Amino acid sequence: MTFYSKLEQHYQKLSRLAHLNAICGWDQAAMMPEGGNQARSEAMAELAVMHHEQATAPELADWFAQAERETLTAEQVTSLKEMKRSWQINNLLPTDLVEEKSLAGSKCEHAWRSQRAANSWHEFSLNLKKVVELARREAQIRAEATGLSRYDALLDLYEPGMTTAELDKLFSEVKSWLPSLIHQVREKQGTEKVSTPAGPFPIEQQKSLSVDVMSKLGFDFHHGRLDVSVHPFCGGVPTDVRITTRYDENDFTSALMGVVHETGHARYEQGLPAKWRGLPIGEARSMGIHESQSLFFEMQLARSEPFMEILAPLAAEAFDRSNDSALSSANLTLLNTRVKPGFIRVDADEVTYPAHVILRYEIERDLIEGHIEVADIPELWDKKMTEYLGLSTKGNYTDGCMQDIHWTDGSFGYFPSYTLGAMYAAQFMAAIRKEMNVDNLIRERNLQPIFNWLDKHIWKKASSVSTDKLLIEATGERLNAEHFRNHLVERYLKS
Amino acid sequence: MTFYSKLEQHYQKLSRLAHLNAICGWDQAAMMPEGGNQARSEAMAELAVMHHEQATAPELADWFAQAERETLTAEQVTSLKEMKRSWQINNLLPTDLVEEKSLAGSKCEHAWRSQRAANSWHEFSLNLKKVVELARREAQIRAEATGLSRYDALLDLYEPGMTTAELDKLFSEVKSWLPSLIHQVREKQGTEKVSTPAGPFPIEQQKSLSVDVMSKLGFDFHHGRLDVSVHPFCGGVPTDVRITTRYDENDFTSALMGVVHETGHARYEQGLPAKWRGLPIGEARSMGIHESQSLFFEMQLARSEPFMEILAPLAAEAFDRSNDSALSSANLTLLNTRVKPGFIRVDADEVTYPAHVILRYEIERDLIEGHIEVADIPELWDKKMTEYLGLSTKGNYTDGCMQDIHWTDGSFGYFPSYTLGAMYAAQFMAAIRKEMNVDNLIRERNLQPIFNWLDKHIWKKASSVSTDKLLIEATGERLNAEHFRNHLVERYLKS
Repeated sequence: MTFYSKLEQHYQKLSRLAHLNAICGWDQAAMMPEGGNQARSEAMAELAVMHHEQATAPELADWFAQAERETLTAEQVTSLKEMKRSWQINNLLPTDLVEEKSLAGSKCEHAWRSQRAANSWHEFSLNLKKVVELARREAQIRAEATGLSRYDALLDLYEPGMTTAELDKLFSEVKSWLPSLIHQVREKQGTEKVSTPAGPFPIEQQKSLSVDVMSKLGFDFHHGRLDVSVHPFCGGVPTDVRITTRYDENDFTSALMGVVHETGHARYEQGLPAKWRGLPIGEARSMGIHESQSLFFEMQLARSEPFMEILAPLAAEAFDRSNDSALSSANLTLLNTRVKPGFIRVDADEVTYPAHVILRYEIERDLIEGHIEVADIPELWDKKMTEYLGLSTKGNYTDGCMQDIHWTDGSFGYFPSYTLGAMYAAQFMAAIRKEMNVDNLIRERNLQPIFNWLDKHIWKKASSVSTDKLLIEATGERLNAEHFRNHLVERYLKS
Repeated sequence: MTFYSKLEQHYQKLSRLAHLNAICGWDQAAMMPEGGNQARSEAMAELAVMHHEQATAPELADWFAQAERETLTAEQVTSLKEMKRSWQINNLLPTDLVEEKSLAGSKCEHAWRSQRAANSWHEFSLNLKKVVELARREAQIRAEATGLSRYDALLDLYEPGMTTAELDKLFSEVKSWLPSLIHQVREKQGTEKVSTPAGPFPIEQQKSLSVDVMSKLGFDFHHGRLDVSVHPFCGGVPTDVRITTRYDENDFTSALMGVVHETGHARYEQGLPAKWRGLPIGEARSMGIHESQSLFFEMQLARSEPFMEILAPLAAEAFDRSNDSALSSANLTLLNTRVKPGFIRVDADEVTYPAHVILRYEIERDLIEGHIEVADIPELWDKKMTEYLGLSTKGNYTDGCMQDIHWTDGSFGYFPSYTLGAMYAAQFMAAIRKEMNVDNLIRERNLQPIFNWLDKHIWKKASSVSTDKLLIEATGERLNAEHFRNHLVERYLKS
């Protein structure tokens, strides 16, 4: 057996362990009764240890060295590169740093639950300092191994190939037009009359509407399920994708748009090529590309006026309200494109969201590079929120830098993926619009050509090409933030 | 660290792997969409390999030898004995035999699906011969290691301490009175008027009735769930017990009695002592004792007239049928105690069930000991069915020796557990009745004293005593089939 084949077998084995983790994790979030948590956490921790042992098995270094000397096809060379990338990510950190990170993250996140409610920045900052210190150590190790800067080395974990230099350029462009765009949209929307549909919307009917919309969006229920969890997510494995949502009896649109978002993630997973199953080359390209698929489904497709023309009658039928004007497609379109600057990122609309992401990116970049310290965060947060969204968070840590747990586990470098995803999605849609009349297709209930495009240019590529190459092959150019701007102007100012 | 402590840690680790297997297995049966099956099977096979590697780790032989020389408490001595028993069970068979067994079992079971429908005994027997041959090899190895006879060595896997000598004695007693008892019951029931409640009984209402009855039977929903699967079972782990049922819109009693049965299994698991969690000493004592708890709940409690007086109004309320006389407690009692000899074991009532078990026991015992061959099965089956239940299966393999898959995977030695469970359950109830007025307690809706007795005498003992000792401590005597006979006579002839 060749060393390349041995490596393939090894990574397929690792993917089987990841399968067990995905299902038990989904169960923990969507099915498990509260009392099962301790034993489950212990069982999953045991699995994580076994996965880590296999992912860092000492023989792998030699196998990679040998495989690199073997005669391989071009596809195998790429596959080997992606296996090695996965190996290096797992293998670079010493075990004690991994453990320290895990402990510091748990401690910081656990204390945050009460500290946030009490607006206790000082206490929180003590735990966060430790998390940042460990993240800097990780960044240093990864920087030395890759030749990248410290923050870039972390960014590379989530968005391979992306750099601070490129992000700074992209985001400074966005910052140059976003505040005035938000202002213009707010002016325009100030005169619009929007009705909020009045609840209750029974959960069973919301569920049945969700399943109906998922089916229309091509979700394959032979290879997946929809369930409920406190924090909606897309989990499971490509042949069995588990998405979740959270229903609110008084508002059906938030759960429904959430379902559409997760359906985008799910179709990417379900569309990954079977021939590379279990291998790193067969996995999703990056967090940003993953987010581009959920945002393509949610923002590019579902929140458009033509799609609301499909959705409105389905909703009216599901809730048995054929005469409710609040459920008209015109009103649902207005409702689902309302723009309002707010403190909380996860509640933000499509237009103000990038401001939240850029703010975090700028702070976490400087934190990891050592240009600022944890103590500097609140003032910077307030300054940037005021500048980008006109909102001050002075003294309000609860709705400011303590609003979510994103930093508590040390996952610095992830934030840009959200806005990269929005930009990729807009660029994909612009390319698709060159090939077909998207609005007409939606109005004809014929989404298949759009899905075929995504399948061919994104899903079936998996990780076989770099993000740059994927974009160029799909759209003819590298990432270009102009498409995102055009999308926002078109939707929010021209229509 | 002592070797004893090392062994404890090792078995706790194994129980964490078993946890992952239990949850992924439950998911496969109750949640997984069809298309997820291949990847799931591969992931679970990988887990089985890892479990086997850990369960047969070469260092264990030395650890056991060293631990046996350490100074241990009496409880630790018992715990060590149970760990060693578990180790020996896993360690005795050579890997190639385990693999051959698995392959032959899968092949036999898979072909059975179409062979049963076609009544193709000859084709089936060719596969079964291979299964029997491997089971004999296993029995031989286990017999040599334990000093037991071949069949006893298999029996010991499921019902430690039980022997052919004792079973022959118990079952010959049962055979001496069962056929005439069945005859008498049939005569008596011939004049009874029973109404079958007319469906439909909507699934949602059946589900809500099931949950209600489970709550009344003390099922802890903080540590467990009820779901649906094709073949009902009790799975999960003690802190998170997953039971399943299968609803039929035309008949609510079958699903409900199934739920009660699995609730008995579940309460045993939920009641196992926390102090021994993850260790063999803390697991259920045997398959027979496990079945005794499900049959105690189903047969001793739920199918009694006093319990039907609780159940009838709950059912009338759940289905909104306050005036349906078919849902009266008197009619439900008759309905749930009907006796009718039939071909199919899994459809059998409480009175005729032992005949099916004794028939299988006698055949599998002689098969494993080499006194008969696979080719002899159909004739023996026909002869015994005719003798015990007055039904001939001549030429009818579909409803005879090919009716289920119990033998296809080579699990010989399991069958007696069903009837041992029924006997244990009757003996436990007889002992409880000496201490309290069970019927009055049920009528007062006060089941707690009964559950407390089970908890103290069975659940909290786990595997810390032998089955013999458990019975003596709980009931003052070893297994005595007379209690089972008394129960049947009392319920089916005197009432």
